[in-house]
Amino acid sequence: MVTCSRHTKTGFAVRMLLALAICLFLAQPARAGKAKYVFLFIVDGMSMSQIYVAESYKAILEGKEVRPGAARLAFTHFPHQAMTTTYSSESLVTDSAAAGTAIATGTKTYNAGVGVDADGKPVPSVAEMARDKGMKVGIVTSVSLDHATPAAFYAHQKSRKNHYEIGLELAASNFHYFAGGGFVDPEGKQSRRKGRKEHVLDAIRSAGYSYVNDKASFAALGAGARAVVVPPRLQDEQSMFYAIDAAAGDISLADLTAKGIEVLDNPNGFFMMVESGKVDWACHANDAATVVNDLLALEAAVERVLGFAAKHPEETLIVVTGDHETGGMALGFAGTRYSTYLQQLARQKGSHSAFNKMFTAWRKANPHGTFEQVAPMIDDFFGLRVSASRESANADTAAGTGAESGNTGSVTTQSIQPFEEEALRVAFARSMSVQDADTKGPDYLLYGWHEPFTVALTHLLNKMAGVSWTSYSHTGVPVLTFATGVESSLFQGYYDNTDLFTKFVAVLGLPPRKALN
Amino acid sequence: MVTCSRHTKTGFAVRMLLALAICLFLAQPARAGKAKYVFLFIVDGMSMSQIYVAESYKAILEGKEVRPGAARLAFTHFPHQAMTTTYSSESLVTDSAAAGTAIATGTKTYNAGVGVDADGKPVPSVAEMARDKGMKVGIVTSVSLDHATPAAFYAHQKSRKNHYEIGLELAASNFHYFAGGGFVDPEGKQSRRKGRKEHVLDAIRSAGYSYVNDKASFAALGAGARAVVVPPRLQDEQSMFYAIDAAAGDISLADLTAKGIEVLDNPNGFFMMVESGKVDWACHANDAATVVNDLLALEAAVERVLGFAAKHPEETLIVVTGDHETGGMALGFAGTRYSTYLQQLARQKGSHSAFNKMFTAWRKANPHGTFEQVAPMIDDFFGLRVSASRESANADTAAGTGAESGNTGSVTTQSIQPFEEEALRVAFARSMSVQDADTKGPDYLLYGWHEPFTVALTHLLNKMAGVSWTSYSHTGVPVLTFATGVESSLFQGYYDNTDLFTKFVAVLGLPPRKALN
Repeated sequence: MVTCSRHTKTGFAVRMLLALAICLFLAQPARAGKAKYVFLFIVDGMSMSQIYVAESYKAILEGKEVRPGAARLAFTHFPHQAMTTTYSSESLVTDSAAAGTAIATGTKTYNAGVGVDADGKPVPSVAEMARDKGMKVGIVTSVSLDHATPAAFYAHQKSRKNHYEIGLELAASNFHYFAGGGFVDPEGKQSRRKGRKEHVLDAIRSAGYSYVNDKASFAALGAGARAVVVPPRLQDEQSMFYAIDAAAGDISLADLTAKGIEVLDNPNGFFMMVESGKVDWACHANDAATVVNDLLALEAAVERVLGFAAKHPEETLIVVTGDHETGGMALGFAGTRYSTYLQQLARQKGSHSAFNKMFTAWRKANPHGTFEQVAPMIDDFFGLRVSASRESANADTAAGTGAESGNTGSVTTQSIQPFEEEALRVAFARSMSVQDADTKGPDYLLYGWHEPFTVALTHLLNKMAGVSWTSYSHTGVPVLTFATGVESSLFQGYYDNTDLFTKFVAVLGLPPRKALN
Repeated sequence: MVTCSRHTKTGFAVRMLLALAICLFLAQPARAGKAKYVFLFIVDGMSMSQIYVAESYKAILEGKEVRPGAARLAFTHFPHQAMTTTYSSESLVTDSAAAGTAIATGTKTYNAGVGVDADGKPVPSVAEMARDKGMKVGIVTSVSLDHATPAAFYAHQKSRKNHYEIGLELAASNFHYFAGGGFVDPEGKQSRRKGRKEHVLDAIRSAGYSYVNDKASFAALGAGARAVVVPPRLQDEQSMFYAIDAAAGDISLADLTAKGIEVLDNPNGFFMMVESGKVDWACHANDAATVVNDLLALEAAVERVLGFAAKHPEETLIVVTGDHETGGMALGFAGTRYSTYLQQLARQKGSHSAFNKMFTAWRKANPHGTFEQVAPMIDDFFGLRVSASRESANADTAAGTGAESGNTGSVTTQSIQPFEEEALRVAFARSMSVQDADTKGPDYLLYGWHEPFTVALTHLLNKMAGVSWTSYSHTGVPVLTFATGVESSLFQGYYDNTDLFTKFVAVLGLPPRKALN
């Protein structure tokens, strides 16, 4: 906020007039709309704790003292920031569909609504409005392209579950660049639609898009292309791999973002939405190591955009926000009190999802397997040494790794206490005996809808690190929004997620929105 | 941030020069220091979740739809805000002494250090520097006046536990107004000091302060007084009553703040620190109803200051911050998933502390008392109806209160599920049998250092409301800082708590600090 009044008495009136003139001058471009290149990053599930745990962990990775401020994510020092409320039309706790719709269209809707208002009526998105003004539009995500958050920018469906219809709307969107995971229901198997169902990929090709599914074609994409990019290797639910599980050479979110700039750059400018969608998934699973690694991958994408912005400082706006908080994450657990040991997270070798895959395969092969048999697996994957594996790993102990204490900062392995082991044994027994968890009683409170053994393990490692969670669902905790570049001061304050739409409309100089057919 | 460059081509150079001139003009007062009345509110234990739960609850109290934005705390729409890191010199998780010292002196210190650096060497506070410049200084708190947070502004002790020495430093501070709880060790019983120990109240009177301990004398205090005010009724540990426990007519934090303005107002201006200290205590006890009521009491104090600021808009700066987050609070609990029922909190009739007092008295009178006997007490105090009280309360049930469902918004009473009742019974048995809880094993994880039965009850009611916690201690989650008034734009961004000191020094136009003797 610019203070236009002065306390000094000399030349007061003259200064007032001068200040007033400049205030008006500075206020002008907001009305005119001068942002030519607009980037909106949405980190699904990210609020303050996710950011702060990632920054603290980053400092450790960089070998710095474990202090906040020692390492910052590329976007947290943006000059303007806001606290942003996220509630939906029906609950203080939003889902991603309602949150995406609020950001994309400025409209509150019910949880599950995509690009529609609370009555189910379609409402236009800022991306569609930018397209209609002649700008190019790109949509990038680490989850499937028909997932709720990206869909809110190009689709209008009463339910986020209408994946087939969302895929067809993508094909019909006339946007210029889509990149991310695949399609959940490309053949319309879950669709209620009657008659012949065109394959989503056919619809995409018919609409003039290149469907790019290999690295060579991806590399060859250049300015002016119209493309739908899906990396060749995908993880669960047609999503890209978690950063912690990705292989060397995999196409990353940063690669998709950088390619988007190349493809979209044109004299009329562009609007690009980039979603880091699996931070949310990892938070649902209360898996901090996977969260921080995906946030570092998101940061890499932001850094690519900052490189572009440096060449166009007076025409580029970058906004980074979350759509809601997931998990009720905190850097502080009752058991560790005033201490934290984030270095513990570095012992985890892959995501909850990767462990789950390994564990369920083992269970299938060993339907009567014992805790003692699985112990080496958790020692190897999470660096957690239970008594069973301790006994079977005498060689290591004899070698004297000296990594038994949580205070040493060592990241090799960690012995757990008897009551912690007991909790793991209970969860293991439950995973071996019950395939469909009771989702209403106390079991739900312990494990959510997750594989009990896997979530018990991530919980244990997280708690040892000093990270704890209150929920397997989203929370009503507001998110943070960071902005830099042209007109970024507009994104300052404490406002609602629907206000993000209004601000983008102002910054892009878009005309008032028209109703959709 | 003011953007001084333009994209339009007409009159570009002229505009640039004009903008440059104004930018310099606007930048000038920050160097000069122009704030005459500076208010710093520190809410112990408050970060985003505490604020947001309070705002959502406030909307309910005001009969509005349960939506964020429906009600705002008086400070959250201040034009400038920041995310502020809180770590101490030894841990990502600070205590209040190190946090208070960071804010007051700009110096990182170890947990427990008060007004000293990490080597235990005294460092001057912004309040002392303002006093030396000729401004008046006031210190207000809802906890004891010798507590860590207020002490950081006037004392220099290697440990926050040196309550007697802190009290003597208060007497010697030459500040002008102290108001809040009493003194924990006024006679120096816990002090290692040899020889005759002057009573802290005698030292205060000898230093020329009026010690004001009754309502009539408080009302009579006026401009120019030098006073130490302690309201006549105090709760535990010499603190003022929690707002939820206060009686009609009790002197409130808002009253102490308003009186501070009256006493301190003078041509040289003043610096006043107001701490809401028991939000932290309620968060330690995971007691959300008490948290939100104390935040509403804090808001009332901020509103009194806003009234003063409206009369002196060009000379007043108001900053509201937290010193750290406590409890890992989130609006979202696994068991309630995407729903919240904050109205449930309204059923709680007093703080965890008030219940504790009642329960421990009952236990003393009934050493072999049963859960069935105590059930009516929890029905009455928390509106929680267990099977025992349900049976004994047939009249109520027959009357058909219709308040059995959490979804109705009714605030009368709430039946609990069998597994929840079982957890209460376990905690009750533990409270009846063990007076000193094991603070290392699984019991600590369940109850912290609290009375097991009390904390099990607040946990249960909180979870029913959709509020959950990860810890009984502080967390490393950053806090939010809000600022309005003259030079408030300086308080914008993402910075460390030590930067608050630097900003106050700039705003007050204070000279570089000198070392203390």
